Amino acid sequence: MIFAMFQLIGGVILSFGWIPQILQIIRTKSVKDLNKKTFWLLFIGIGLMEVYAVSLAMEGVGYAFLITNSMSLVLIMFILFLIFLYRNRD
Amino acid sequence: MIFAMFQLIGGVILSFGWIPQILQIIRTKSVKDLNKKTFWLLFIGIGLMEVYAVSLAMEGVGYAFLITNSMSLVLIMFILFLIFLYRNRD
Repeated sequence: MIFAMFQLIGGVILSFGWIPQILQIIRTKSVKDLNKKTFWLLFIGIGLMEVYAVSLAMEGVGYAFLITNSMSLVLIMFILFLIFLYRNRD
Repeated sequence: MIFAMFQLIGGVILSFGWIPQILQIIRTKSVKDLNKKTFWLLFIGIGLMEVYAVSLAMEGVGYAFLITNSMSLVLIMFILFLIFLYRNRD
């Protein structure tokens, strides 16, 4: 049980971890050093994980994983949007 | 079983997803737009997940999760190293 807490806390930190990067992009409007391919791959990877998370939730388990993974998915999508928004400014 | 494949493939894509970002940093030696706090939080989050992954592996399950999570951990550590290496060049 205690180890499952590690996954939950790790997942929450992973999701919120993107917020400083998002705030920096909004402040500087500069995305030159962010690699578009990487963020597309992160989006696809987390998206596939989301399918797994939903399948777990439909079996009545893994709700925490679904929540933290969904948060990461939304934040990565937002970063991809910002990359496109500010890409031509560099 | 099919959904567990989604997690495995998603995990592999997530791990390898960092490689284009690493190659870009090495090529441009520019990390100005990468947020140090975010990468520290990703490192801590994945590190906590690693504790969970090791605990699963010690129970004889979740080897794929341990492999993909360990790869992500190593790649994030390398990005943190590169951020420190090139931070003063900006």
